[in-house]
Amino acid sequence: MQEQNSQSNPNTAATANTKDKKRTTISEIAEESGLSVATVSKVLNGRPDVSAKTRAKIQDLIVAKGYRKRSIPEPQTPFIDVVFEEFESPWAVEIVQGAMSAAQDHGLTIALTSLSEGDERRVWFDHITSRGTKGIILLLSQLTNHQRAELRARRLPFVVIDPRGEPDPSVNSVGATNWAGGREATKHLIDLGHQEIATITGPADLLSARARLDGYRAAMEAAGLTIKDEFCRWGNFHVEGGYEQAKLLLTLPKPPTAIFAGSDLQALGVLQAANEMNLRVPEDLSLVGFDDLPLSNWSSPPLTTIHQPVRDMAALAVRILLDFRKRKDSTEQRVELATHLIVRGSTAPITP
Amino acid sequence: MQEQNSQSNPNTAATANTKDKKRTTISEIAEESGLSVATVSKVLNGRPDVSAKTRAKIQDLIVAKGYRKRSIPEPQTPFIDVVFEEFESPWAVEIVQGAMSAAQDHGLTIALTSLSEGDERRVWFDHITSRGTKGIILLLSQLTNHQRAELRARRLPFVVIDPRGEPDPSVNSVGATNWAGGREATKHLIDLGHQEIATITGPADLLSARARLDGYRAAMEAAGLTIKDEFCRWGNFHVEGGYEQAKLLLTLPKPPTAIFAGSDLQALGVLQAANEMNLRVPEDLSLVGFDDLPLSNWSSPPLTTIHQPVRDMAALAVRILLDFRKRKDSTEQRVELATHLIVRGSTAPITP
Repeated sequence: MQEQNSQSNPNTAATANTKDKKRTTISEIAEESGLSVATVSKVLNGRPDVSAKTRAKIQDLIVAKGYRKRSIPEPQTPFIDVVFEEFESPWAVEIVQGAMSAAQDHGLTIALTSLSEGDERRVWFDHITSRGTKGIILLLSQLTNHQRAELRARRLPFVVIDPRGEPDPSVNSVGATNWAGGREATKHLIDLGHQEIATITGPADLLSARARLDGYRAAMEAAGLTIKDEFCRWGNFHVEGGYEQAKLLLTLPKPPTAIFAGSDLQALGVLQAANEMNLRVPEDLSLVGFDDLPLSNWSSPPLTTIHQPVRDMAALAVRILLDFRKRKDSTEQRVELATHLIVRGSTAPITP
Repeated sequence: MQEQNSQSNPNTAATANTKDKKRTTISEIAEESGLSVATVSKVLNGRPDVSAKTRAKIQDLIVAKGYRKRSIPEPQTPFIDVVFEEFESPWAVEIVQGAMSAAQDHGLTIALTSLSEGDERRVWFDHITSRGTKGIILLLSQLTNHQRAELRARRLPFVVIDPRGEPDPSVNSVGATNWAGGREATKHLIDLGHQEIATITGPADLLSARARLDGYRAAMEAAGLTIKDEFCRWGNFHVEGGYEQAKLLLTLPKPPTAIFAGSDLQALGVLQAANEMNLRVPEDLSLVGFDDLPLSNWSSPPLTTIHQPVRDMAALAVRILLDFRKRKDSTEQRVELATHLIVRGSTAPITP
């Protein structure tokens, strides 16, 4: 439907080809695959009436040939799609609020998809494509080469947000200043007189975790403090990751007096460990989180943390999508929004 | 579009009218309003090309006359709409997960709307109607008579879920067994030997709050325990509601040894108050929440609470919507899903 012009008249694409010699046309893909132009077009538009085998064959060719739609379809449907790898995360609410608010300003509705149900990723993709969308906000830690190529082939605007990752530079993405946040959290603890400061960060394969750790190191080094190997812990970003690593830290012969946790959930895990060991926060242990989720204000004591502007990040992603068709250049954007320190009840000056 | 038959042939409706004499037809509304059948039909289908004044005039007539569409439109769009009064609530994630999972099983997508942005309720309503929907899940504490009448007039299937309210019996709704939950929470504390048990419940205008309080009373009375007036507190369902009421309770000349809070957020507020007053939970104070949100497992100590099956409630709402067109009768359904006690770390036997 969206491809009607080039579908009914393959010559249009062929003519255009003389201007841009490298451009692959639908008819070339049809020829190479031994299938009709109409069938290729159906696959491009995510229509369901194509066999899985034919679909796979054409999709592989689309990717291999680097085909891209000539015209950017302007869908009638007033939707922006938000696709979550998992809709479990505590910042899912923040993302949806930010995106919904920005979308509603433009009379658009948010359509939600979660990929947590098995690995039938093909399905959501075709589903979204066939019903039309203004663009897709992806909350994925990894986008496969195949997915990226297909999104491009269909000229569907997409933006990646991942408050935990650092998406690759070849896609439009929105993030936060993780390194600066890690540095500010640690500097706050140093300013309170702490020297024995440990950090718990996320999985080593997440660049955001790495950036937060490096921010910690930068602050420690700037203050002339020793960075002990046993004070740099890697855990998952969930509560149990913080709990497990805090148990190890707090049972060291010389435990830290302060911990910078790489996420608010980890910080809640540290609170649980401290509570079990009858250590008071902040009297016996100072603690800084990261994210500033609503729940960071609800713990006992409320968490000092690094605010990550997740709602603003989602709103910005919507604006990038809506600007996509207006832009002349096709340079990918990586936008980082600033983090900042929120001081609450979980940090205090070191007691002698 | 959905109304094409009766729109192009008003006689169809007139013929049907001989069978059911009370049924109002589009042509009657057109006649009474002095406008064309086409215009009335446009308003019914939420089309934008009608002036606000004309729209309001027709909508008032539709409600006043009790008009209902004869045919139930079967929209092409693969959407179920979820409309939140506010997308702030911690169980918003649970609702969306439950609805999304059930919808994806039927190849449907969840479209989200939040009404928190001002009071332009008319807009979302027309917006959803014009783009088509399989049905609407409403998370509203109150549905106005006008809204109810309009939804019925358009024959749009809708179900109300409100984990905090008790929707009126004249609409399809899904809830939980609030009274039984309140009773079970209190009985758990009694079984641990507590006698001085207080409760904090939600705003008096929410029937769910009232039901939970009555469950508390039923358990206290069954055990032959005195219900002290000063032990029955009303607060909002948020953290600060629990905090404020707990401060009052814990500074009484003879404070309670256990508190049943009407929501997990309130229970977190109680934890904050206890923490500030150097009271240990559960050693000095036992505490039960209500909802079993994920965060109830992340506090220090993790909360003993009443599980409210919010995901299942949302999934059930989707099924009720999808069954709507199959059902012959039009009896409204009120379905209550069972709650149950989850024992974690915030309750302990009374210490002598």
